[in-house]
Amino acid sequence: MSNLTHRKIGSEEKQEDAKPEEVKRILTDIGSEEEMEPLPSNPSGESMPQDQAKIEVLDSVISDLNPRWRNWFVRGVFTLVMILAFGLIVNLGPLAITILILVIQVKCFHEIITIGYVVYKSHHLPWFRTISWHFLLTTNYYLNGESLIEQFSILFRRDNFLSPLVQYHRFISFSLYTAGFMAFVLTLKKTYYLKQFTLFGYTHLALLLIVTQSNLMVQNVFEGLIWFLLPVSLIICNDIMAYMFGFFFGKTKLIKLSPKKTWEGFIGGAFSTILFGFILSIFLCKHKAFTCPLEYDSKTMSWSHDKCNPADMFTLKEFSLPNFLRLLIPNAKLYYRPFDKHVLALSVFASTIGPFGGFFASGFKRAFRIKDFGDTIPGHGGFMDRFDCQVIMATFVNVYIFSFIRSPSPQKMFNQLMAFKNEDQQEFIRLVKNHFGEF
Amino acid sequence: MSNLTHRKIGSEEKQEDAKPEEVKRILTDIGSEEEMEPLPSNPSGESMPQDQAKIEVLDSVISDLNPRWRNWFVRGVFTLVMILAFGLIVNLGPLAITILILVIQVKCFHEIITIGYVVYKSHHLPWFRTISWHFLLTTNYYLNGESLIEQFSILFRRDNFLSPLVQYHRFISFSLYTAGFMAFVLTLKKTYYLKQFTLFGYTHLALLLIVTQSNLMVQNVFEGLIWFLLPVSLIICNDIMAYMFGFFFGKTKLIKLSPKKTWEGFIGGAFSTILFGFILSIFLCKHKAFTCPLEYDSKTMSWSHDKCNPADMFTLKEFSLPNFLRLLIPNAKLYYRPFDKHVLALSVFASTIGPFGGFFASGFKRAFRIKDFGDTIPGHGGFMDRFDCQVIMATFVNVYIFSFIRSPSPQKMFNQLMAFKNEDQQEFIRLVKNHFGEF
Repeated sequence: MSNLTHRKIGSEEKQEDAKPEEVKRILTDIGSEEEMEPLPSNPSGESMPQDQAKIEVLDSVISDLNPRWRNWFVRGVFTLVMILAFGLIVNLGPLAITILILVIQVKCFHEIITIGYVVYKSHHLPWFRTISWHFLLTTNYYLNGESLIEQFSILFRRDNFLSPLVQYHRFISFSLYTAGFMAFVLTLKKTYYLKQFTLFGYTHLALLLIVTQSNLMVQNVFEGLIWFLLPVSLIICNDIMAYMFGFFFGKTKLIKLSPKKTWEGFIGGAFSTILFGFILSIFLCKHKAFTCPLEYDSKTMSWSHDKCNPADMFTLKEFSLPNFLRLLIPNAKLYYRPFDKHVLALSVFASTIGPFGGFFASGFKRAFRIKDFGDTIPGHGGFMDRFDCQVIMATFVNVYIFSFIRSPSPQKMFNQLMAFKNEDQQEFIRLVKNHFGEF
Repeated sequence: MSNLTHRKIGSEEKQEDAKPEEVKRILTDIGSEEEMEPLPSNPSGESMPQDQAKIEVLDSVISDLNPRWRNWFVRGVFTLVMILAFGLIVNLGPLAITILILVIQVKCFHEIITIGYVVYKSHHLPWFRTISWHFLLTTNYYLNGESLIEQFSILFRRDNFLSPLVQYHRFISFSLYTAGFMAFVLTLKKTYYLKQFTLFGYTHLALLLIVTQSNLMVQNVFEGLIWFLLPVSLIICNDIMAYMFGFFFGKTKLIKLSPKKTWEGFIGGAFSTILFGFILSIFLCKHKAFTCPLEYDSKTMSWSHDKCNPADMFTLKEFSLPNFLRLLIPNAKLYYRPFDKHVLALSVFASTIGPFGGFFASGFKRAFRIKDFGDTIPGHGGFMDRFDCQVIMATFVNVYIFSFIRSPSPQKMFNQLMAFKNEDQQEFIRLVKNHFGEF
């Protein structure tokens, strides 16, 4: 199969429709499997970047360093830049974070679609890019709409202008999707059938992977910023520390798929991540802005967390020491937060299962014979190279909250009841009275 | 790309792992695009089957007929057999229907996976089939579990044995999925990367297409049998009548993708389907067994529709005639059911958008160079050949019910409230009291 890919890329040279720089990057990145093996002199944690030339300001500073340290330096500088930018955006509040997530989602989708477009040589396929973006918009409209409706149901129902958008949300989404589906069927062209179906599937998988996950991440933001900041930071920490431990101590190869990853990096990353998780959570647990879910208040017509009493799990509790210890050190007191066990669960997932997102991405890049998903971030590659593990983490956190954290909310059920018709409200109250008595 | 497929199929001959008969069927079905063009002497509504030889009993009866009529006869006999079998199963009740839907789902998944397995020559891929079936089980466990929990929440919460399965349902599903995902990553093998990723995507698309749709169909059953029987019958009717009209009157080609479909079949099918829809709904609307949703009664601990008053839309109403008509024919009375407009909407969808499911399947079969999805049903092909349009219809009906039919259910909200913890119940009742007064 790999021979076939090779043949395809060699035999067809027309590149009119695709942007020249994209094609050039992906095609120059394609090499034989052997070229992608690790160099013995470079046992670092992850892949080497090839596009430092761009950063002219840094050039003079780093020109004296040898390539290994130059890579280390560029990567480090842009890691700091990204963390700073991230911190600034978080500071702007939940809306800015949501927009950030959506922008990254679109960027990742674009990277993946471009790879499909170039690798499958789809420049002559009628309407493929248009239909792909149409599906992206439709999926976003559907998923984000569902989330918004759940969060702000009362606001929408009262407002006459928006209420049909709410009531018929699924129907509108389905119609949009069906239009795209019909367009796909009607633009099928005899000699391109297999290519068109392959790319149709490819687009849908990109949607499944990127859009649904980014939607879950937005949901996590609404459960309280801590459920977004902590997991994202854990993955970032694990990426950095695995790279560092691999860079300085890496000797034993971890997995064939990603030959630059080492057991030393994996284990060092895991311990650092668990430690970092506890330290970060001490800070996050102290502020209402992080621990309170964003709930919409139907009375003040605004959503805030000012009134919220943070859940019990975020506050310090005294740990009752065993008797023999109390006898030994009479004044010793030990404090803990119930949230600590969740921190441990998230850290362990981030540093053991999380990296499989990265392994999967490595395998994908090898299968499609590309080096990176893009070249947007110097020293790192494309957005998708940086967010491969965030995707699996966001899903885990969402499921975790649903299974272990979220309790049924009386306020939300009350909001639902308010959206009922009068006779349904009366019928419901009758049922409640029958059960609880006349209270 | 089509040349590549050809080369692939020609160049590699080892078939040890796959079942010989499957391979034989799919490989003999693969011909050049030209062989699959329609014969001028065969302007019927759909494709010709090739496997009548199997039905020995019928052989003597039909041996005198020419091939065109023989096909017509076999197809007709097995259409009747399927409709009869379907009727018998419907008679057994909702549980039997649900099992039927699940069995057909598994059969369709098997057909699609087998095509991927043979076409992509995946006999040496480690663990591919096992992982695919694991994902099928996981997806079914997740989706059907969610539906069951919504329907029977009270039963599960009271029962101590089942309650952890309910509470941690998503977490268990996620863990199962993650295990499959990790198994996929760990079984990646150097020379097979592209094949493995392609089949991973292929499996996920099959899941998206088959399992989610069959789950929506089960949901429709619970909304009232009419929401399952009417749309399924409309699609069957449209398939049969389009075939008949095409067979007898077909002249003008409809779409290049499916060269045996004609405008005469399309239009004749549409009118017949709309007429049939109204006739069938007269019968279905009369019986509670069809119109009532299946709701679980927490008092009698059983689910039935005996107590239900069918919704207003299923009962006859008098249509107020315009004045001039009343003067003309003084005793004329006209009756209608509000449900009639839904019948019209479903019939129009089934006969105009529905066939796009069939076009899509035709394109898919051409792309992968197969004649049919299977050979289970003589005269028809595989299960997937018969259910291609049902898939898109089931989704439409589900969205339609959600957008235009289902009103919030006081009983369901009460069941949810019963599943709350005591303090949450009290908090909710406090909110209700504040708003409605002490009632």
